[in-house]
Amino acid sequence: MGGDHAPRAVLEGAALAIGSGGIDPASLLLVGREEALRPLIEELSLQPVEVVHAAEVISMDEPASAAVRSKRDSSISVAMEAVASGQGDAFVSAGNTGAVVAAASVVLGRSKGVHRPGIAVPMPTQKGPCIVIDVGANIYCKPEHLQQYAIMASEYCRAVFDKPTPEVGLLNIGSEEGKGGGFVSETHALLQASDISYRGFIEGQDILSGAVDVVVCEGFVGNVILKVAEGLAKFVGQQVHNAFALHPPRNEVKTAVNEAFASLDYAEYGGAPLLGVTAPVLIGHGRSSPHAVMNMIRAAGSLVEYGLNRHIAERLAAQSGGVSP
Amino acid sequence: MGGDHAPRAVLEGAALAIGSGGIDPASLLLVGREEALRPLIEELSLQPVEVVHAAEVISMDEPASAAVRSKRDSSISVAMEAVASGQGDAFVSAGNTGAVVAAASVVLGRSKGVHRPGIAVPMPTQKGPCIVIDVGANIYCKPEHLQQYAIMASEYCRAVFDKPTPEVGLLNIGSEEGKGGGFVSETHALLQASDISYRGFIEGQDILSGAVDVVVCEGFVGNVILKVAEGLAKFVGQQVHNAFALHPPRNEVKTAVNEAFASLDYAEYGGAPLLGVTAPVLIGHGRSSPHAVMNMIRAAGSLVEYGLNRHIAERLAAQSGGVSP
Repeated sequence: MGGDHAPRAVLEGAALAIGSGGIDPASLLLVGREEALRPLIEELSLQPVEVVHAAEVISMDEPASAAVRSKRDSSISVAMEAVASGQGDAFVSAGNTGAVVAAASVVLGRSKGVHRPGIAVPMPTQKGPCIVIDVGANIYCKPEHLQQYAIMASEYCRAVFDKPTPEVGLLNIGSEEGKGGGFVSETHALLQASDISYRGFIEGQDILSGAVDVVVCEGFVGNVILKVAEGLAKFVGQQVHNAFALHPPRNEVKTAVNEAFASLDYAEYGGAPLLGVTAPVLIGHGRSSPHAVMNMIRAAGSLVEYGLNRHIAERLAAQSGGVSP
Repeated sequence: MGGDHAPRAVLEGAALAIGSGGIDPASLLLVGREEALRPLIEELSLQPVEVVHAAEVISMDEPASAAVRSKRDSSISVAMEAVASGQGDAFVSAGNTGAVVAAASVVLGRSKGVHRPGIAVPMPTQKGPCIVIDVGANIYCKPEHLQQYAIMASEYCRAVFDKPTPEVGLLNIGSEEGKGGGFVSETHALLQASDISYRGFIEGQDILSGAVDVVVCEGFVGNVILKVAEGLAKFVGQQVHNAFALHPPRNEVKTAVNEAFASLDYAEYGGAPLLGVTAPVLIGHGRSSPHAVMNMIRAAGSLVEYGLNRHIAERLAAQSGGVSP
């Protein structure tokens, strides 16, 4: 029921995921208001998916924690309960991000050994996606949180983007040691001592050039990065649109440029995982298209198949055994 | 001597500033290695500008504080001394930003009542420039620092962008009260009590839409915003370039799109002022074009004429008299 075009975009995404051959319709649980879902299931010939009724809906801009507390029968909470009880293996939503994070924390809980869950967003770069973690689950972090983010995001990269040794950078405002203050220095030392492929400091412009596969940062700055990138892509798109209005290009030029802009849309990448909770949770952008929802469902399948949570638990256990006192 | 194309781009910028009629050549002090400057002054017919010899040069990526300490005869330090002694009224450079900030702090010093100087960058938006302060002079701030930034940037907006009542936003990761934690809440309360036109929280995407005239944030996140925006603009430009290579557009389409991208280049906006030191200091991007240098020189003239530092001092004095105990 979540997202700007729900429930239609979500169900169309489910249809695409089934149609693409990777997803067995009987493995999908659709959670939401049955009377809203049934006609679309009919229309899109989605049988034999299973419907789990949830009477309430958390809207996109509702204050998250309060909504999760007061709406016990929301689609987000009911779907999370289904995963917690073992009826489902992974959770996918294009709904209210804060509500998903709150429900996951309460209903699923943190994985053993995890200090704080973090949201990892694959951002488009010149060399494929770069994972930025955290983008808002954990506003102000401790160095140990960022160390765990680096480990968890490396595992996610292996699972979904087929990179056996993902390279990790620490966001800073310069490349020299001593820049960025004590928090950054402490985190730098922890990452150097971690069992990851750590490449040192990364500046803002390096994220988009694809210098590394994973960038770790505090949730406040990560969230700002995501929103600035989104705002800027929109602004540039508008400028190019205005230029085209004055000097209309041939159709194939327009199509090529539109495709270039579509490649910038991280909403298409298969969603952002909330890493560090006891089951795979994928959060899509509110404006997720059916194609984006399909990618999320398939990514959820990959994470379950890979055994992401088992891998993360093993890595964290090895790390804390190896380094911390 | 600073910048990627120094000293030629700087001297060509001086020539443009003189040619545009606003700047008297006799009012310009060019500071740098005399043997490098003289031939260009000849070539560009820049007489009667005055040359102040400085034997040393701080390079663009030298660690800033150490360079300022060890190179007492660098163009940055010598020019700053010229302003401190009253030989000049304002300082302009496309050189090493950290070195300019360090030299300004040591040689000029903070204005009376200023806690921390901050760098204000005019970023292009859908509605003209938006000033983001701080972008790296003050990595981790106190709420009082951001309050002063809001006041100083409002004055700068009045001086250079002709906006009598600039609207100020506080960068946050949501628009509700309670988001962003204690630091943001405390700053929010201080800004509400300040004699500025405060519009509340602003998210990353709102910067580029031009929702406000001034956005205040800590130096770490401000610096990241700037660099992500720069990296993204470059990335999008590359994508569009690739699209054009496959489907070459007519020349006027290409020109219109190139102009759209040029409007995104904050390097062209007349430099970023370091606010809170005892004289106007403008810092340009390393890749500043002659046009950008011209804009900086003219902006420096406007700040002197407006009496920016006197206005800032009056505002800060009124603020501390009015609100703090």
